[in-house]
Amino acid sequence: MTETMQIQEVATRDGFQIEPVHVETADKIALIDALSAAGFPRIEVSSFVSPKAVPALRDAAAVFAGIARRPGTVYVALVPNPKGAERALAAGVDEVNLVASVSETHNCANMGMSPAASLAGFGRIMETLRGSGISTNATVATAFGCPFEGEQPADAVMAQVERYRALGIRGVTLADTTGMANPRQVERLVARALRVVPAEDLTLHFHNTRGLGLANVLAAYQAGARRFDAALGGLGGCPFAPGATGNICTEDLASMAHEMGIATGLDLDALIRLSRDLPRLVGHDGPGQVAKAGRPRDLHPVPRAA
Amino acid sequence: MTETMQIQEVATRDGFQIEPVHVETADKIALIDALSAAGFPRIEVSSFVSPKAVPALRDAAAVFAGIARRPGTVYVALVPNPKGAERALAAGVDEVNLVASVSETHNCANMGMSPAASLAGFGRIMETLRGSGISTNATVATAFGCPFEGEQPADAVMAQVERYRALGIRGVTLADTTGMANPRQVERLVARALRVVPAEDLTLHFHNTRGLGLANVLAAYQAGARRFDAALGGLGGCPFAPGATGNICTEDLASMAHEMGIATGLDLDALIRLSRDLPRLVGHDGPGQVAKAGRPRDLHPVPRAA
Repeated sequence: MTETMQIQEVATRDGFQIEPVHVETADKIALIDALSAAGFPRIEVSSFVSPKAVPALRDAAAVFAGIARRPGTVYVALVPNPKGAERALAAGVDEVNLVASVSETHNCANMGMSPAASLAGFGRIMETLRGSGISTNATVATAFGCPFEGEQPADAVMAQVERYRALGIRGVTLADTTGMANPRQVERLVARALRVVPAEDLTLHFHNTRGLGLANVLAAYQAGARRFDAALGGLGGCPFAPGATGNICTEDLASMAHEMGIATGLDLDALIRLSRDLPRLVGHDGPGQVAKAGRPRDLHPVPRAA
Repeated sequence: MTETMQIQEVATRDGFQIEPVHVETADKIALIDALSAAGFPRIEVSSFVSPKAVPALRDAAAVFAGIARRPGTVYVALVPNPKGAERALAAGVDEVNLVASVSETHNCANMGMSPAASLAGFGRIMETLRGSGISTNATVATAFGCPFEGEQPADAVMAQVERYRALGIRGVTLADTTGMANPRQVERLVARALRVVPAEDLTLHFHNTRGLGLANVLAAYQAGARRFDAALGGLGGCPFAPGATGNICTEDLASMAHEMGIATGLDLDALIRLSRDLPRLVGHDGPGQVAKAGRPRDLHPVPRAA
């Protein structure tokens, strides 16, 4: 039986949101359509957050209106509050992704409210979405560590996961928001989460801030996780470390999976082409490696003797 | 019992050899002395290769003459042929590292001779070193794939390992010369090599060319490997892919090990300081992540409410 891994693309949300240059709406739509054609099971398209807070994603509704919906791809929007959920509903998203940090300090800094207040809002969002047919996922941010508080107790992470499930939220993402996770911690927390959340509903969201992104994917996969977020070209960043990288890189992860004999359903050649085109959109080179070095199986001509 | 990992520093050899700028001899000596103080069990200082072939390392003898020898650190030189072994002997190296590719094509392109001719030279080198007290290591280059031929048969890799051992060479390095390895391949080949070579004599040399360097370390460690080459700042490169990264990054690997509870004996704060100073020596920024983002435990002040 073929092993499989689901890679979920987040570049147009988690990548573009920190870019200083605004990517044109038409370019976003063309990129998402190309990503759909490359075979992603899920694409996090944009975020219905305040345009003042994240101006780069102010065109979320227009992007959702413009993209072609490929059967087999779930089109997701991040939603921070009940008002965002109403906008997402109007835009016809397939799934909303809610987010709250397990760290009190981080949630206050990032969302302007306590985690408890965020969770109360999730209850209202679930009311708003009732009967809409829209599926739901919720993210535990800073699940592997908070940049202000440090490591977070696994019990607190799991309590938040249980609250999500109690609210009727199906999908759960454990996010290493600022790239603090290590493989052993990942192995332990994934094993624990899988006692509560089935593998088909659990996503791991790793950042490569300290270079461990794909090692953490490997550890999570070995522990039974099968769904991973990643960003084309490794787009994204860390607000605390100028020059540090952000999300793990989609095409590097897909190449690793394919070389390991794990099917992703993705067209890696198409991803490499799309990644190499990203500098045109964002104005800079990215940290992805496979787009620079080529696939391991792309052989080179033998150099002529000097 | 504390788990341990040996990280062996190769920046001044495998890193500097491809830099277009010649690093001053005095700067190399100061860096190696600082690396010694940071606690490395082994440092690959330089290479006694033809100065025409690798001008960046033409000062190998002067570097060996200038460095302070810290008890507990083994100072290694790469040696391509019997003439290089004589120069290494005269320079007072502690250990020589020989290298031959398992790929016929790669060895011809890289060393100008067949692997069989390289092995014959190793026999003469062992004669030269007899009674000198100098220890020996030999590297199987392209062990995880050749950029011209693709994947290499594990049987051929193991045959070369057995020939090294038959020549009386103690240490064996399996090198992923152009970053083609994947974690499953690593797991299989390491398990096989450990049936022939004790863990204390086996080194894994990974490149991060396709972003999998630390995932491959994790797989190798899980399979029982305990010695890893790495380069400060992730120096090095890939001759076939401009912009692609080279060696795995020492401080990123040390950070991963420490976060996993694996002792390395290295002073990570010192490594980060040294890595941040590399642009002064080589004139460019490197791919290392921890030097940019800081250690996971370096917490940030809580931002003030906007």
